[in-house]
Amino acid sequence: MVNVAALEAGQNEQAAKATRKRGGRASRVRNREEQATSASKAIWPGLPGGAYKPLTDHDLQRVHSTVLDVLEKVGVGDPPALLVEKALAKGCKINEHGRLCFPRSLVEDVITNACHSFTIHGRDSKYDIELGGQKVHYATAGEAVNMYDPVTKAYRPSTLVDLYDMARLVDKLDNLHRFCQTVVATEIVDTREHAINTAYAMVSGTNKSLAISILGPQDIADTISMFDMISGGEGKFKDEPFCSIGCCPILSPLRYGEDACDAAIATINLGVPCDFAVAPQAGATAPAALAGALVQVVAEVLASVLLTNLIAPGHPTTFAAWPFISDLRSGSFTGGGGEQAVLAAAGVQLGNFYNLPTTCGAGMSDSKVPDYQAGYEKAITNLLAGMAGANYVGEAAGMQASLMGCSFEAFVLDNDMLGSVERAIRGIEVTDETLSFNVIEDTVLGAGHFLGTDQTINLMESEFYYPELADRSAYGQWEEEGSKDINERADVRTKEILSSHYPSHIDPDMDKKIRDTFPIILDEADMTEGNDRW
Amino acid sequence: MVNVAALEAGQNEQAAKATRKRGGRASRVRNREEQATSASKAIWPGLPGGAYKPLTDHDLQRVHSTVLDVLEKVGVGDPPALLVEKALAKGCKINEHGRLCFPRSLVEDVITNACHSFTIHGRDSKYDIELGGQKVHYATAGEAVNMYDPVTKAYRPSTLVDLYDMARLVDKLDNLHRFCQTVVATEIVDTREHAINTAYAMVSGTNKSLAISILGPQDIADTISMFDMISGGEGKFKDEPFCSIGCCPILSPLRYGEDACDAAIATINLGVPCDFAVAPQAGATAPAALAGALVQVVAEVLASVLLTNLIAPGHPTTFAAWPFISDLRSGSFTGGGGEQAVLAAAGVQLGNFYNLPTTCGAGMSDSKVPDYQAGYEKAITNLLAGMAGANYVGEAAGMQASLMGCSFEAFVLDNDMLGSVERAIRGIEVTDETLSFNVIEDTVLGAGHFLGTDQTINLMESEFYYPELADRSAYGQWEEEGSKDINERADVRTKEILSSHYPSHIDPDMDKKIRDTFPIILDEADMTEGNDRW
Repeated sequence: MVNVAALEAGQNEQAAKATRKRGGRASRVRNREEQATSASKAIWPGLPGGAYKPLTDHDLQRVHSTVLDVLEKVGVGDPPALLVEKALAKGCKINEHGRLCFPRSLVEDVITNACHSFTIHGRDSKYDIELGGQKVHYATAGEAVNMYDPVTKAYRPSTLVDLYDMARLVDKLDNLHRFCQTVVATEIVDTREHAINTAYAMVSGTNKSLAISILGPQDIADTISMFDMISGGEGKFKDEPFCSIGCCPILSPLRYGEDACDAAIATINLGVPCDFAVAPQAGATAPAALAGALVQVVAEVLASVLLTNLIAPGHPTTFAAWPFISDLRSGSFTGGGGEQAVLAAAGVQLGNFYNLPTTCGAGMSDSKVPDYQAGYEKAITNLLAGMAGANYVGEAAGMQASLMGCSFEAFVLDNDMLGSVERAIRGIEVTDETLSFNVIEDTVLGAGHFLGTDQTINLMESEFYYPELADRSAYGQWEEEGSKDINERADVRTKEILSSHYPSHIDPDMDKKIRDTFPIILDEADMTEGNDRW
Repeated sequence: MVNVAALEAGQNEQAAKATRKRGGRASRVRNREEQATSASKAIWPGLPGGAYKPLTDHDLQRVHSTVLDVLEKVGVGDPPALLVEKALAKGCKINEHGRLCFPRSLVEDVITNACHSFTIHGRDSKYDIELGGQKVHYATAGEAVNMYDPVTKAYRPSTLVDLYDMARLVDKLDNLHRFCQTVVATEIVDTREHAINTAYAMVSGTNKSLAISILGPQDIADTISMFDMISGGEGKFKDEPFCSIGCCPILSPLRYGEDACDAAIATINLGVPCDFAVAPQAGATAPAALAGALVQVVAEVLASVLLTNLIAPGHPTTFAAWPFISDLRSGSFTGGGGEQAVLAAAGVQLGNFYNLPTTCGAGMSDSKVPDYQAGYEKAITNLLAGMAGANYVGEAAGMQASLMGCSFEAFVLDNDMLGSVERAIRGIEVTDETLSFNVIEDTVLGAGHFLGTDQTINLMESEFYYPELADRSAYGQWEEEGSKDINERADVRTKEILSSHYPSHIDPDMDKKIRDTFPIILDEADMTEGNDRW
């Protein structure tokens, strides 16, 4: 594809003419290139977010102050006994409504002393990512209960095999940095059986880092035992954890949930990184005013951070504000609008203000299919979340139908979109060399064109991201090749991956041990190339 | 659609329970609502940009300093005689390569004394928009030479009737605030005939403000005469100009273009607002390093601003940095990537730094069809340009195939996307009322749900934007209704508008006078409902 000969001819011609005043390659650019693990050198995990600030500093302070008011005066209902015990010892009070109220100074102290950064490991170390600062990553998530079938144009219940197939798919998609649980295996009724099989399907399909949600404390023990086996023995998993555990300890508005708090406490006690998303819905379980929804979600997330830190100070946990939006014409959830984008980004901005590891939900679409609507909705929400500096954006790919369903094709399409989003987040490096005074001067006085300069050749792979699916051909060529839209190309690519990529991320001996120990449902035939699924 | 009864029932119930401590509606929100001319109260022309800053202040200063170096040391080639005369009198020099070099202090002085804000009028005053500060507007533009035909899935040459139809279409699309020239009437060979017919087709189709491009000075006189007739007599048009004139006085890299400079000078002398876009292409006619491309385009735009202001100090003109990107695998233009988004936004940031009225090109797609790719490419570029604070974003709608063609359906789709983009740009208003402490307290201690609160009912139309085409139904309902994607809905809406909206923006008597005076080609039958085109 690349006309290197022409470029080099230009380069040589240019070299003969031009005055040379250039220094070595800027170390900043070089360092960044070395960090690249992606197939593209132009983007990499952990790009620098924060260029977008939805709130002014003054407005942010007003939000923060109101959050402290809410935690101090309104408090949080139904606190678990262990938290009450720890909190009262730190000066908290139970008010006349039985709600746990946190003094401002305690909240500030807990934020100061909380874990500000931690590494979530891949099982291949190239997938290790640091959650902290404003380093940006993109991940799946969503726990939908349906799959979209592009042939029948209808949704069907999601299964365990779907989850495994998605893990395999994401394993091959460079612009997705984590695989957090995408669908529920709806055919498994028992929650304990569901938990171990969910974990197994995910860990078999990808060696990127994982996040799994649990409903109660009974769901976690088997999973951690299996992860210990994979990590080399009892207690080994938590040394380099490749999975964080999620649950929702807050029931909006502003109550602790009993089962989820038990699950949260079990997770904390196991020493495993926590990822407790809080997801109030503006206009339904939070105020319709976006500023008010923001106040509430931040208060709720801090209530979750307080739960973790009062029980285990400094335990790795995230500031996971995942506020959602209601379409007030129907009262139902809508994930694809501009309100969703700016509200999620503002939550990230607050988490960055607290210097806590941030996650948020973005990349949702209300469209049922990966069409133009899905393209713009997912791009707007993913872009602003990343630009605001989310350490990981969950639900970034694959989700359709307001989180009710997943589409295999959508993962592949969204990966393409995320490449462009990530390139935009990377921004513009300004160095003496990139400012290009000499290149401009030489070219203006010389060849008059930049295509053949050595700068252009050097930057070809590192400055520019080349999408895999997006069409950039001339329109005549496009017509000759059958006037295809991007969905047709994504369909081919999706089937190509899913019919061939059956990774061996679990050693066969270990796999046998796991199957001997736990009630693993996934059929080995379904995990082998040549099955009739793809 | 809206279950107002249910909401009001909730409101009454809530009213009986809750303590009332609220003040009146915040004046800020009220003022903004009053500004709304859009069908949606949640968004309006002139939303506040600037929350996204692609460059740090330090990096921005380095870019600016290098720009001054380029203008002072490299200079601009082929300056027109009139400019040379004015410039030498102000201390400029012609260097040994015959290039006009501008001292730093002169450039700074011209920026300081340039026009910082001007109004471009609609022929209906509700479409007046102020270009200045960081007020954001979206507009068409592009001057493509092809139209996409969704039936044959192929492109055909664009015509005058296409331009007129697009004007009519944009006249009905609330989220587009200006109609700048979208296609060239390729069937008209003579440039003077092309100019007057282009102006007539546009002014007939919409009373939103216009921008027209001209190739040389011969193209402008007839157009301004016709605009004078419409404005009430000779010399009247420039009192409340409803059209700006565009040309490209700079040939990249860093040369003045002879014909375009003549056109620019003619425009300046007529007292008409100027909109002189500069469009170098990184990797081809500008450095491949984005920072270098930014330096060059800013230097070139300032060379255009210098041209205007040295001839007519303070004349209304824009800082129109429209940098583009090359796909270095082929050398051809690509408009849809993340590089394009961040580079255009950085140009806007520089224009805001200079406090000049800014425009930029965004909303381009390399896709040939309005598919998922088009959705994400257009969203990313439009969003960042607006978030950076562009006074108007041109090419925001309708363009496909890397600016080679337009699609009627795409205008309607892009208008929907721009609604979400504009809602995100509006951001989050923080006031005592929107922070919602009392609403949270009342609801937590009361109903436990926000759907029925008076805040929710009050904010229903003003806080949330409801897209016209984007699907937000439940997936079961969507299947029952035929599993349609957004293109199917856009197709219906496009034909609905184009088959019925034949506006009378020119009075019939005036129309006759215009037709008696100028060689108007558009057939009256083609401008009347019931023709066989739609």
